[in-house]
Amino acid sequence: MVEAVTAKIDDFFQPRGIAIIGASATPGSPNNQILQFARQMSINGNVYPVNPTKNEIAGLTCYPSLLSIPAPVDLVVLAVGPQNSLSVAREIQKRREEKGDAGAVTIVTAGFKEMGTAAGEQLQNELIATIKKSGARVIGPNCQGVADTVNGVNTTFSVPPNTPRGGVTIISQSGAFATSFLRWASDQRLVGINKFVSLGNMADVDFRELLTYMADDANTKVISMYLEGINDARGLFDIAAKVTAKKPIVAIKAGKTAMGTNVAQSHTASIAGNNDIYDGAFRQAGIIRAQSVAEFYHTSRVFDKMPLPKGNRICILTVVGGPSTICVDELVATGEITLAHLSDELKQEIAGHLAASANIGNPDGYIDMTASVTPKMHADVLTLLMRDDGIDGIIFMTTPPGFIKDEELAAALLAGYNSVPEGKKKPLLSVMLAGNAVAKCRKILEEEGLPTFEFPDDAARVMVNMVRYSAYRQRNS
Amino acid sequence: MVEAVTAKIDDFFQPRGIAIIGASATPGSPNNQILQFARQMSINGNVYPVNPTKNEIAGLTCYPSLLSIPAPVDLVVLAVGPQNSLSVAREIQKRREEKGDAGAVTIVTAGFKEMGTAAGEQLQNELIATIKKSGARVIGPNCQGVADTVNGVNTTFSVPPNTPRGGVTIISQSGAFATSFLRWASDQRLVGINKFVSLGNMADVDFRELLTYMADDANTKVISMYLEGINDARGLFDIAAKVTAKKPIVAIKAGKTAMGTNVAQSHTASIAGNNDIYDGAFRQAGIIRAQSVAEFYHTSRVFDKMPLPKGNRICILTVVGGPSTICVDELVATGEITLAHLSDELKQEIAGHLAASANIGNPDGYIDMTASVTPKMHADVLTLLMRDDGIDGIIFMTTPPGFIKDEELAAALLAGYNSVPEGKKKPLLSVMLAGNAVAKCRKILEEEGLPTFEFPDDAARVMVNMVRYSAYRQRNS
Repeated sequence: MVEAVTAKIDDFFQPRGIAIIGASATPGSPNNQILQFARQMSINGNVYPVNPTKNEIAGLTCYPSLLSIPAPVDLVVLAVGPQNSLSVAREIQKRREEKGDAGAVTIVTAGFKEMGTAAGEQLQNELIATIKKSGARVIGPNCQGVADTVNGVNTTFSVPPNTPRGGVTIISQSGAFATSFLRWASDQRLVGINKFVSLGNMADVDFRELLTYMADDANTKVISMYLEGINDARGLFDIAAKVTAKKPIVAIKAGKTAMGTNVAQSHTASIAGNNDIYDGAFRQAGIIRAQSVAEFYHTSRVFDKMPLPKGNRICILTVVGGPSTICVDELVATGEITLAHLSDELKQEIAGHLAASANIGNPDGYIDMTASVTPKMHADVLTLLMRDDGIDGIIFMTTPPGFIKDEELAAALLAGYNSVPEGKKKPLLSVMLAGNAVAKCRKILEEEGLPTFEFPDDAARVMVNMVRYSAYRQRNS
Repeated sequence: MVEAVTAKIDDFFQPRGIAIIGASATPGSPNNQILQFARQMSINGNVYPVNPTKNEIAGLTCYPSLLSIPAPVDLVVLAVGPQNSLSVAREIQKRREEKGDAGAVTIVTAGFKEMGTAAGEQLQNELIATIKKSGARVIGPNCQGVADTVNGVNTTFSVPPNTPRGGVTIISQSGAFATSFLRWASDQRLVGINKFVSLGNMADVDFRELLTYMADDANTKVISMYLEGINDARGLFDIAAKVTAKKPIVAIKAGKTAMGTNVAQSHTASIAGNNDIYDGAFRQAGIIRAQSVAEFYHTSRVFDKMPLPKGNRICILTVVGGPSTICVDELVATGEITLAHLSDELKQEIAGHLAASANIGNPDGYIDMTASVTPKMHADVLTLLMRDDGIDGIIFMTTPPGFIKDEELAAALLAGYNSVPEGKKKPLLSVMLAGNAVAKCRKILEEEGLPTFEFPDDAARVMVNMVRYSAYRQRNS
C-alpha cells in the first residue's frame, strides 16, 4: 500500500463538495438542520445527503453511501451514531483510495472520550486512526463542525445561514459557546463572522494547526478562541506568538478553577492546567485574554471593525459625568493607558464649537460638552480630535438629549470619524446609555462600522485591550 | 420669628401637590418635559406649572408664582436659571411661613459648586441656606430630581412615565447613570423600579438620610446606589449597616482611581477617597459592591425578584458544557460558594427523568441534561432540585434545541420553580444563550418574576452576591 497523501486544511473551508452522512428527512431534527443549513449557505449547491433509506431529502438527491456520490467531495460530515461511525470511516478510506478526495471530516457524533469510559476512549481512538490512515483530517468528534460565511460552507446545525459576514473567525472547544456568540452577533448585527470552528474533543486538528492556517487567511482579521484545555501548550503558544505578529488573537480560557476544570473534563475530556501560568503565557504570546464573556465578545468585534491605536493616549468625549467617571476608572486601572494631553491650541479650537458651560480638559484629555449640545457640535469636536496627533483613541459617551434625532447623531459621529482618510483613522468607541431609545442610532453606526456599547466599562476594557495589543505589535514586528 | 419646622422626607415621595417653577411651553425642552412627565405620572393631577408669562401650559392652569397656587404644594421643582434661583428660594420661605407646605425642593438648575468657581460655590451656599432656614429640605442642586412609580411622583425630564414598577430604589450622584439604568430596565422589562433619586451636588439631603428613609419604606425591596464621593463616610457606613440588616444595598463606587476622582470632582464636586478603604467599609457594612455596571444592574434586579439563598450550596442545571465551565469558574472563584452535594437518592430520581447520556453529578452539583432534552425534563428535574434541602440556589443554562418552543420552555421552568410554596423557594437564575432566538421565553420568564441572563458569568456573579449578602444577614440579624 502506498503512503496516503495528507489532506489540506483548505478542504474544510473551500470544499468542492460536502457529503452529509446520516442526513435526516425529519424536519427539526439536528441531522435535517445540518442539511438545510449546508444547502442554504452553499454557493454552488454542492451538498450531498447520504442516507440509504431515502432517494431524496429536501429536494436534493440522496445517496446510499459516500462512495456512490459521483461529484468531488472534499468535506464529509459524519453524523451517524457512534456504533456506525467506524463503517463510515472505512468508506472514507475507500473513497480516498479510489478518488483521492474526502480529505476533511467533521464528526458531529458524540459518545466517545468525553463519556469518561474506557470504551468511549477506545472507540474514538479506533475511529480517528482509521480516518487518519487514509490521510484525511478530522475536526471533532463531539463537535458542531465548521462554517465559512464567505466561501458558503456550513456543516453545523447551529450557525444561522444569515449570520452577518465580517472578519472574526471563532475557534472553540465549546460548540454552545461559539454558537451563543454567533446568535448574539446575528441578532444585534454587532459583529461580522468569517469562519466558525467547533473543535469538540479535538482528536486530530487542533488550535495549533488552525491558528497557522488562519494567520494566512485573508478573510480572517481577528481570531477568537474559546479554550478549555490544551495538550501541547508550549507548541500552541509558540505558534500563537507568530500569529499575533500579524493579526490579533482574543482568547477566553475556561477551567480557571479546579471545579471549572472538573466541568471541562466531563465536557470535552480536557485537562485545564494552571490558570496563572496560562495568564503569563497568553500575555507573552501577545494573546488578548478576556476575563468575561462580554469582554470576549466586544474585544473580538472591535478588533475587526476598528484600526489599532498608535499609542496609549485616549480622549474622553462625553455629555454624561457619572458613566464617564466609571469609564475613566476602568481605562486607567491597569496603568497601560493615559488620558491624552490636549494642547492649548486644541482646547481653544474646541471651545469655539461648544457652549460656555462645557468642560474642556478638566482633567486633561476629558471633554464634557454638557447637555446643551447639538449634532453639529459632535461632528465638529470629533473632527478636531480625529485630526490631532496627540490623541490615539477616543471614547464617546452619551444619553442623547430628546431633541436630537438618532439619524442626526449617527450622521454627526460618522462625519467626525470619516473626517480623516483611512490610514489616519484612530479607534472611536461610542457608548450609548439609553437602551432602545438609541437603538436606531446604534444600528446605523454598527452598519457603517462604528462599534457601539451599552456600558461604559465595557468600552474601556476593549480600549485597554487594543492599546495592549498595539504595544505588543510595536515591540514584536 | 418662630423656629421653622423641618419638613419630612415624605414630602418628596408623597406630596399633595407638585409645583414646577420655570415650566416651559416649548415642546422638547427639558422644562416642558419635566411638566409632561410629572403630569403623566401623577395619580391625582396635582401638578402646578409656574411661569409668569403663561396662563396655561399643556392644558394645566399656569401660576405666576409659587405663592399664587391655591392648593397644597409639598414638592417644589426649582428649574429656573441659577441667577433667578434665589428669588424662588425666598418665595419658598414665604410660602412656608404663610401656608406651612412647600417642604421639599428638588433643584434641577446647574451652575453652582460643580463649576469649580468661588462664585458658584457661594451662590449654592446662599441658595441652600435660604431654603433650609424655612425648614424645607433640598435634593440637588444640579440634579434630575425624584420619581416614585407607585405614588405617581416624577419631577425629572429623564424617568419615562412607563418605567416598569418594582422594588428597586435607585439613589445616584449621577443622573445620567441612574437614567441609563432605568432606560435599560424599561426597554427590556428586566427590572422594576420603585423610587429614583438623583442627588446632584448633594447640598442637603444625602445618602444617609435617604438610606434611613428607604429602610422603612415598604415599597423598596432593594436600595441601589451610585456613589462618587461621600462627605461623612463613617456616618454613611454606620447607617448602611443598620439598613442591610433589613434589606440589601447594592453599590457602585466611581472614582476608584486618581484620574476617575478628577472626573468626579469636575462632575459633582465630590472627593472620592481611597478605594481600598471603601472596599473594606462596604463589605463590613454588608453593602454589596458591584465591580461593573452590568453587575450593578443584574444584582439590583435579582435582589428584587428572587428570594435569598439560605446557604452557599449551588446546583448547575445545563445543556451547554462550555458556558457552564465559565459559569462554575466565576461561581467558585471567590471561595464563598460550593457546588451542592447531590445525594444518591436525588441522583437516582433525576436519572429516572433524563436520557442515559445525561451527566448527573460529575462533578458533584453539576447536571448536564445533554441535547436530547424535552420541556417536561426541565420541569421534572427542576422540581426535584427545588424540593431538595441540600440545594440553596440553582443556575440553569441553555441554548434551547430548535424543536423546543419558547412558550413550552418558559412554562416548564415556571412549573419547576413554582413546584414549592413561597417560603420554600430558592433563587433560580436562567442563562439563555441564544440572542433573540429566546427573546420570547425570556420575556415570559421576566414577566413572571424569573430573572434571565445573556452571559453565564453575569449570573454567577449575581449568585455570589446573593450568597454573600445572605451570609451577612445570618451573621448580623
